[in-house]
Amino acid sequence: MALTGNLVGERPTFVTHLECSLTGERYEADTLHGLSAAGRPLLVRYDLAVAGKALSRGALETRPTDLWRWRELLPVRHAASIVSLGEIETPLIPIPGAAARGVIVKDEGRLPTGSFKARGLVMAVAMAKELGVTRIAMPTNGNAGAALAAYATRAGIETVVLCPDDTPEINVREIAAQGARVYRVNGLIDECGAIVGKGAAEGLWFDFSTLKEPYRIEGKKTMGLELAAQLGWRLPKAIFYPTGGGTGLIGMWKAFDELEALGWIGSERPKMFAVQASGCAPIVKAWEDGVEHAERWEDAQTIAMGIRVPKAVGDFLILRAVRESGGRAIAVDDADTLAAVDDCGRRDGLLLCPEGGATLAAWRKAVAEGWIDEGDEAVLFNCATGLKYPLADFSQTLDKNELPDLATL
Amino acid sequence: MALTGNLVGERPTFVTHLECSLTGERYEADTLHGLSAAGRPLLVRYDLAVAGKALSRGALETRPTDLWRWRELLPVRHAASIVSLGEIETPLIPIPGAAARGVIVKDEGRLPTGSFKARGLVMAVAMAKELGVTRIAMPTNGNAGAALAAYATRAGIETVVLCPDDTPEINVREIAAQGARVYRVNGLIDECGAIVGKGAAEGLWFDFSTLKEPYRIEGKKTMGLELAAQLGWRLPKAIFYPTGGGTGLIGMWKAFDELEALGWIGSERPKMFAVQASGCAPIVKAWEDGVEHAERWEDAQTIAMGIRVPKAVGDFLILRAVRESGGRAIAVDDADTLAAVDDCGRRDGLLLCPEGGATLAAWRKAVAEGWIDEGDEAVLFNCATGLKYPLADFSQTLDKNELPDLATL
Repeated sequence: MALTGNLVGERPTFVTHLECSLTGERYEADTLHGLSAAGRPLLVRYDLAVAGKALSRGALETRPTDLWRWRELLPVRHAASIVSLGEIETPLIPIPGAAARGVIVKDEGRLPTGSFKARGLVMAVAMAKELGVTRIAMPTNGNAGAALAAYATRAGIETVVLCPDDTPEINVREIAAQGARVYRVNGLIDECGAIVGKGAAEGLWFDFSTLKEPYRIEGKKTMGLELAAQLGWRLPKAIFYPTGGGTGLIGMWKAFDELEALGWIGSERPKMFAVQASGCAPIVKAWEDGVEHAERWEDAQTIAMGIRVPKAVGDFLILRAVRESGGRAIAVDDADTLAAVDDCGRRDGLLLCPEGGATLAAWRKAVAEGWIDEGDEAVLFNCATGLKYPLADFSQTLDKNELPDLATL
Repeated sequence: MALTGNLVGERPTFVTHLECSLTGERYEADTLHGLSAAGRPLLVRYDLAVAGKALSRGALETRPTDLWRWRELLPVRHAASIVSLGEIETPLIPIPGAAARGVIVKDEGRLPTGSFKARGLVMAVAMAKELGVTRIAMPTNGNAGAALAAYATRAGIETVVLCPDDTPEINVREIAAQGARVYRVNGLIDECGAIVGKGAAEGLWFDFSTLKEPYRIEGKKTMGLELAAQLGWRLPKAIFYPTGGGTGLIGMWKAFDELEALGWIGSERPKMFAVQASGCAPIVKAWEDGVEHAERWEDAQTIAMGIRVPKAVGDFLILRAVRESGGRAIAVDDADTLAAVDDCGRRDGLLLCPEGGATLAAWRKAVAEGWIDEGDEAVLFNCATGLKYPLADFSQTLDKNELPDLATL
């Protein structure tokens, strides 16, 4: 069955070690790790010279296009560790009505559990299973918790999920429906994270917070790998990415370096635009201040819950990628985000999530400010299905027994 | 770009004519048609002998896997008619927890607008555009209206959508968000259909009701084509299909015949199980009564809105396929449907829609009654994302200022 096309047989993997993203200190692979001794994320390193001999672009192109086609660049050693819910390659969709001809949306809402969180979590859960973890806890604004619940349930791992008490209703409910225990907390995601950290220190569970284990980033980097393959082994001029914890942005940046090391792409990079909400823009502030680390954003508020992250442990990695790329961190107002969601639906028939809408608003701002040209090929990441978020009711009623003149409909 | 891999260049199509599904009367292709003179659905016919020379299985397997890879077996003549939102091949997902090892779910919730309706509507809208339609109306239980709205908006065609006033809230709202005008009617889908028919007779719009135009079925048949390709050019032992209007079941049956005519599969067929709800089971009643047409089901009630269809214009086609296949029409209680949705989420991490849950409930009934063996390879169609439907709230609350012993979480 094509179903298991990438999941059977030998799985050569070329992981050599892990290293601290701040100090470069080496850590052993195949051992359970959280943050480095310096309290920073660990990055997985591969022997890309050998990997490049084992895999050609041509061979890759004959495989089914799901996430597991990239197995030589992923950390999982044993196919048996993988719990899959069908991690398809997400489509690229032009939105000429709401944006311009060169603008395409990568629609991550088509992944399992309806968001890009599936990429990171399917990888992290597989590695947790491989390394013997039996209980996981996580703070979440919603979508990550849903993905964790689904995959952990499938892997037979128990999960406890903590989310802010104003997390979208559908998220809270789907987490429980997919087998996790879920708690609403009177605090923001970093305060939920503090509770998870406390329980982890007590030995109650393994901490799956963003970037606090090394493998979600490896899953998320497939967004970059996939994009390069979909565009015929080149990259777009600009990428607009909704940035909360920033795993995906960091992951894509890592992916591009790995592809270049393999000789599959050149040294050109897209301008990376980290998109945040005006009501929670710690990365934008740090970018504007020219500093390497971001301060916690107090009183964080935005309708785009997925990017309501006051403090990101990978802040310096996000800022470094944005700066190296010649991009920017951009804050957009909620009103512009809502207008973008509305426009894209009504003009292009594509329902974005609020965070996806924020990337469209940011693209508009970037064009208006002259940071990019309207004709530049730009990719916007719609990180989740728009169906998870409240929509306004524009319906009218019709009485079957007293029909009006139908020409007025 | 792989994005347009199947949408560029010449599009050979092999349509010869249309024919009445009841009388076999011929109708001209490339002309706008509704029902046949006998008031029955029209079926699109192809010169499969010539198509089989133009396309080999090998050549097909080199194409991107989206719906448009099947272009030689589809009616669209010009790539410019196609409005795409990324009609990916939907994944096959085993559910060993809630069912058995041989049972796989085809997860149609990954399609644009979150349901299998995208298959039929992307095709019907492309043909409407090709044939010059500028205004469309449709009765819907929700998902079809959402797919129509999205594609028609993209195609620049105006749409009016009528739905029962108890249609799921998210559906009503997404239809408007994707650019259609939507009306809630105090009646069931066939009563909405009567209003659409009245307006069509007045020349106000083209009638897009299920099977009342010939092309939705051509889009839906790709479920059958895709399944055969995914399973390595063989078919499963049984297919469980949630059956309202039945377009997909009829379409798959047609697909299997076309694949056999091409010599790509043999004469074996799956047992086709048409799944309905006990509260609205006109096809089941007709099947049990041994008659060819179904009577309207009065006081239709079920939580599975998508199959709350009291009267289907293609009833005889559904019944014919089910009987020829050696399958059955099965009615399941809502309680069993809900239990199936719950089980699949909690055991396999996969959130089914109610109609998808009904197919799992029907599979369980079929095993219990001995209609199939538990070990038989069976495919269940989850026709939409489970995220569109209300879920129960199983969350608990946690006060960050008065944390309990975390070991109790």
